[in-house]
Amino acid sequence: MAEFEIDIAIVLTQLFVLLLLARVMAAIFTRLKMPALVGEIIAGIIVANWIWLYDILQIDLDKTTVLYTFSELGVIFLLFTVGLETKFSDLSKVGKVASKVAILGVVFPLIFGYIVLYAWPLGAHSQVECLFMGAAMVATSVGITARVLKDMNVQNSKESKIILGAAVIDDILGMIILAIVAGIGGSSSGGIDMISVVTVAVLAFLFVGLIFLFGAKAIPKVRARLPKDEAGCPVLPKSEAWTAFSLSLLVCFGLAAIADLIGLAAIIGAFMAGMIFAEFDDMHQLENKFDPVNEFLVPFFFVMTGMYVSFSMVSSGVLWMSIAIIAVAVVAKYLPCRLGARSLGKGVAKRIGIGMVPRGEVGIIVASIGYAGGTGPVSLDIYTVVVLMSIMTSIIAPFWLSRSFRRDIKMDKDVSI
Amino acid sequence: MAEFEIDIAIVLTQLFVLLLLARVMAAIFTRLKMPALVGEIIAGIIVANWIWLYDILQIDLDKTTVLYTFSELGVIFLLFTVGLETKFSDLSKVGKVASKVAILGVVFPLIFGYIVLYAWPLGAHSQVECLFMGAAMVATSVGITARVLKDMNVQNSKESKIILGAAVIDDILGMIILAIVAGIGGSSSGGIDMISVVTVAVLAFLFVGLIFLFGAKAIPKVRARLPKDEAGCPVLPKSEAWTAFSLSLLVCFGLAAIADLIGLAAIIGAFMAGMIFAEFDDMHQLENKFDPVNEFLVPFFFVMTGMYVSFSMVSSGVLWMSIAIIAVAVVAKYLPCRLGARSLGKGVAKRIGIGMVPRGEVGIIVASIGYAGGTGPVSLDIYTVVVLMSIMTSIIAPFWLSRSFRRDIKMDKDVSI
Repeated sequence: MAEFEIDIAIVLTQLFVLLLLARVMAAIFTRLKMPALVGEIIAGIIVANWIWLYDILQIDLDKTTVLYTFSELGVIFLLFTVGLETKFSDLSKVGKVASKVAILGVVFPLIFGYIVLYAWPLGAHSQVECLFMGAAMVATSVGITARVLKDMNVQNSKESKIILGAAVIDDILGMIILAIVAGIGGSSSGGIDMISVVTVAVLAFLFVGLIFLFGAKAIPKVRARLPKDEAGCPVLPKSEAWTAFSLSLLVCFGLAAIADLIGLAAIIGAFMAGMIFAEFDDMHQLENKFDPVNEFLVPFFFVMTGMYVSFSMVSSGVLWMSIAIIAVAVVAKYLPCRLGARSLGKGVAKRIGIGMVPRGEVGIIVASIGYAGGTGPVSLDIYTVVVLMSIMTSIIAPFWLSRSFRRDIKMDKDVSI
Repeated sequence: MAEFEIDIAIVLTQLFVLLLLARVMAAIFTRLKMPALVGEIIAGIIVANWIWLYDILQIDLDKTTVLYTFSELGVIFLLFTVGLETKFSDLSKVGKVASKVAILGVVFPLIFGYIVLYAWPLGAHSQVECLFMGAAMVATSVGITARVLKDMNVQNSKESKIILGAAVIDDILGMIILAIVAGIGGSSSGGIDMISVVTVAVLAFLFVGLIFLFGAKAIPKVRARLPKDEAGCPVLPKSEAWTAFSLSLLVCFGLAAIADLIGLAAIIGAFMAGMIFAEFDDMHQLENKFDPVNEFLVPFFFVMTGMYVSFSMVSSGVLWMSIAIIAVAVVAKYLPCRLGARSLGKGVAKRIGIGMVPRGEVGIIVASIGYAGGTGPVSLDIYTVVVLMSIMTSIIAPFWLSRSFRRDIKMDKDVSI
């Protein structure tokens, strides 16, 4: 009837078809003992390349659509839920190792991404384009790894804490590098606007630092002041309008918005919000509340990730370069991160290395800033290479990680599927 | 950084601010023993008329935004959850009374809406404009009443079943009337395209009829074939990928999309989807799964409802006409519906009459089709009158209904708050 109605029918059809396809693929992959999220990514690749379906669903990846919001909310809630299992003291304990993992895992991909593209025999690439390639290979997409950890129920393992801590640091460093590279690419003189780079860096450290300070100093005081039940456990005052769940939604959206506004990933804010509520985990059953919300929204993140792959953009030149870049992306992240965590023993260090490999949507965002719809220093071919690298690292890592965890389960009762 | 990121920051900020405001207002109204949903509608009115906030949040009601999708999903999930409490046999039992309520509640508002505008002393109004006014006063917005029934925990009462049954019939009749009126308004000859009117009517009856047939015939057979547990209760085959919740999401989106595509409200499809799962309610705890999803999304529907009211559009002429139209909208719905249910006793019939009063978003949609952004037969003033009528009936009815239920609670233990 009206404009309104047609649109909502399209949205509902999109939700129906994508959710159905995601569930079918996840069921097949689960049956084959493979990670369900890989099935969901492949569902997205199917949609993106099945022209008939793509047209029927009226999907438009260039516009910020409802689907994009759903996928972002999905990964935001996912990271919030992972944060719910993570206490500030857990992260502080692993801070040193996590920093080493993060720094090594940032430096090597940046250098090797730059070198490989610069030295590539076919076609010349500008220094700025090579810098963008390096920057796109830096940031780990912790959403992918978080889902594997959650699906395997090992969020409380040591490797989980270190990967999460390293991901936070990694995101801050990645953002600073992106600010520098985008500054070089954007200015005609090729110079860097140091003030803006310093500003983003200071804001990021302030944001994370203040929340940690709040977690370490303020939360224990809040807990001490709350009324206690017979067992000495603090209880929240009862209120119909202010449930713990609605409070947690507000904190999650608020911190995610702030993180995004200062240039960090929104999921970092959501993860921190989850950590705040983890300090009160004896007082609520938030995990149970977020489970259905996640079951609804999280698949959209993985389907959306897959939807960036369009086979029509892949020429043979792109294909060869992609293979090389994917190999470099895996090795230059895995080995340095593993090295950074070597003090924790072979198995744990290995899984930390694997867990840092997926680049997911982060690499694609960096490349799309450089591509800028055809007006930036990054060519369409290089953009396509980065997309393939991001997706393939996100498909390889879950296989590898779940296999490595499974192998350990036979020896260690603490880790369960 | 990129376009993407700014947009998601805005969406997160919108979600944060609107949810916060909705919760604060709901908490105040609950404290004052008034319906929480009225507080949420008023939160929306505040946002719409507080220019500074409206600009900061970058809200654009003309575009189909993410917020609109959230509000639609909220009311879809709400009606699904209400459907979960409604069995096909419940509705069949009340079919006769519900039909009487629906038909009387359609005919009188249509006639009186037409007459009042036609006879209005100030300014001349075309026949088509008067017809649109009548059509806008027809359809009950069952979302408002459903929320009151749910908040008061009386979804299983007799009045609840009749209101829901009548709302389904009412929506079908309203859609046929809208098709006729829009046909007259759209054609230059003033004639009606009978074929398209008959088509929509047949499709609507087919849709509802087929689902009822499925509910009455197929579901008992499906139940009989399912494996049974020791107690003789059927159980769903266990599957990691296919939980009852994900299945219900798919059926809900699918039926809502179909309902919307054939011209019914999407919520009618969602309600029917809920009814299908109600037949299996001994096998799942879907209510618990939908509770957090509803807690997240439903407030957006009520906030959005309030956001259509812009005080800057209200002149004194509009104000006087609005008061008259609101009075007519209440009386011409309440009395006939109460009359239609008089066989059930005074108290029940009264509450059924009240429950049919809210027009919510349905009246606004009808008026916006006639207004058509300034190109249709409905003037901006009349559009504004319809908006005020829709909102005010949605604010008056919950007060009245909850008061009437509360009064009965003192006499009847079966009804609890």
